[in-house]
Amino acid sequence: MSAPLFGRVALIGVGLIGSSLARVLQRDGLAGEIVACARSQATRDAVARLGLADRITADPAEAARDADLVVLCTPLSAYAEIARRIAPELKPGAIVSDVGSVKGAAIRDIAPALPAGVHLVPGHPVAGTEHSGPEAGFAEIFQDRWCILTPLPGGDDAALERVSLLWQAAGMKVVTMDAEHHDMVLAITSHLPHLIAYTIVGTATDLEETLKSEVIKFSAGGFRDFTRIAASDPVMWRDVFLANREAVLEMLQRFTEDLTALQRAIRWGEGDKLQELFIRTRAIRRSIIEAKQA
Amino acid sequence: MSAPLFGRVALIGVGLIGSSLARVLQRDGLAGEIVACARSQATRDAVARLGLADRITADPAEAARDADLVVLCTPLSAYAEIARRIAPELKPGAIVSDVGSVKGAAIRDIAPALPAGVHLVPGHPVAGTEHSGPEAGFAEIFQDRWCILTPLPGGDDAALERVSLLWQAAGMKVVTMDAEHHDMVLAITSHLPHLIAYTIVGTATDLEETLKSEVIKFSAGGFRDFTRIAASDPVMWRDVFLANREAVLEMLQRFTEDLTALQRAIRWGEGDKLQELFIRTRAIRRSIIEAKQA
Repeated sequence: MSAPLFGRVALIGVGLIGSSLARVLQRDGLAGEIVACARSQATRDAVARLGLADRITADPAEAARDADLVVLCTPLSAYAEIARRIAPELKPGAIVSDVGSVKGAAIRDIAPALPAGVHLVPGHPVAGTEHSGPEAGFAEIFQDRWCILTPLPGGDDAALERVSLLWQAAGMKVVTMDAEHHDMVLAITSHLPHLIAYTIVGTATDLEETLKSEVIKFSAGGFRDFTRIAASDPVMWRDVFLANREAVLEMLQRFTEDLTALQRAIRWGEGDKLQELFIRTRAIRRSIIEAKQA
Repeated sequence: MSAPLFGRVALIGVGLIGSSLARVLQRDGLAGEIVACARSQATRDAVARLGLADRITADPAEAARDADLVVLCTPLSAYAEIARRIAPELKPGAIVSDVGSVKGAAIRDIAPALPAGVHLVPGHPVAGTEHSGPEAGFAEIFQDRWCILTPLPGGDDAALERVSLLWQAAGMKVVTMDAEHHDMVLAITSHLPHLIAYTIVGTATDLEETLKSEVIKFSAGGFRDFTRIAASDPVMWRDVFLANREAVLEMLQRFTEDLTALQRAIRWGEGDKLQELFIRTRAIRRSIIEAKQA
């Protein structure tokens, strides 16, 4: 058997994505040793019960000590504090990566803390479900999905290559782009859809009681799809919207203008305008099916 | 073998729902004869090729002649004209029903044209996919979904019962409510979600070209679910929004207020407000799973 891709891998945060990554590391023998770090006792117990790591700790510094790869898999708001705590323990040549949905904020919060000789490779495996926690993870979650890496200018090519190999082993198609561009693309493909789904489901929860029970009963008409998205992890998504504020507000502004135009068309009975848009949106669906992302 | 539930059944419109209903009628032997009516030659050819009817015609009047049950399965905007054309051909005791998503407008457009002794039983099987046309239909589309009937005050109980039996045979759970209430419930569970999905997919189609191709590529982050909804039949949905204008605008207004509040929370970094909402919306998802509508 050949040597594993990494010696010691530390996963800081072991929720849906962190635990799925642990499962990939185990399945493919990609790590000499897996150290899992989780703040809550319940998560650490679950990780132990599921046998997802060789060692489990509540202390990020202890997890990062002598690690060859440290992957931050926590909500974004924890990054700055974690970076500060792991920095003194990182050995020269260690790679620090993450799986967060906003890359500008990730770099802003991690990079300044890292000592020279440690390589930062920010990453975002675009995969997930509406479920959370270590029990919800599974190795196949990454299969055939995209992983976006946003290396810093002048970053270490060998480190980038090794992180890329890791996600390819997980079944992902890996691309690189700059962090700012990533954050704009994800604002429209992921953050705005989540924001809207959360909103409409919230609007429904505020309905009169009689109406509310029927909303649940007749949810198959379209609403149901939104509730699935709006069941995603609350803390993770709170952090995403705060961390990608500029891009989300920009896309939200465009959306609101378009919605207002449709509202006006409905009010004035302008069927042609509605139909024209609905034909246009159908074509996008076809493109997604052709791109095998459906 | 017992007598079928209906003698001659005329389906006016043979798209996704009409053709699915034809398949149920055939599967369960619910009709002595099925007459299909479609305006376009292409649809009539497809119905013939698929063997979905005993007779096929382009003329609603011819289809309705001597029928025991006539079901309108066209977009809502065609109802008034169809009602006017079939009325002189309807025999006493005949039942007229429909499958449209807006019941107030359906009653407004059909009821005045019908002769005395003909029974109107407006219906809405809450089922569908993003696909259209007779090839897209399948008998199981109705299975375990709700069918809402909105009988008129003083309507014929026996006619209501027979239409109810038809949809129960299709596997549906049948409930009755008044048309106005139906239109309000569907505005939030179906019409508003579709409107929003159409809007966000439209917003994405207006993006700069470079961004647009990446939106398709990275659609798995949430956007994809919206594109499926926004691929639904353009003419049918144009009609739904125009026919249920008041209720849709009312729900849209509530949604917009809620979205504006979230926008403000993001702008001012009010994480608590975001998280509080996201926890609340999660609970709705659980209710839907418990109601077995997920």
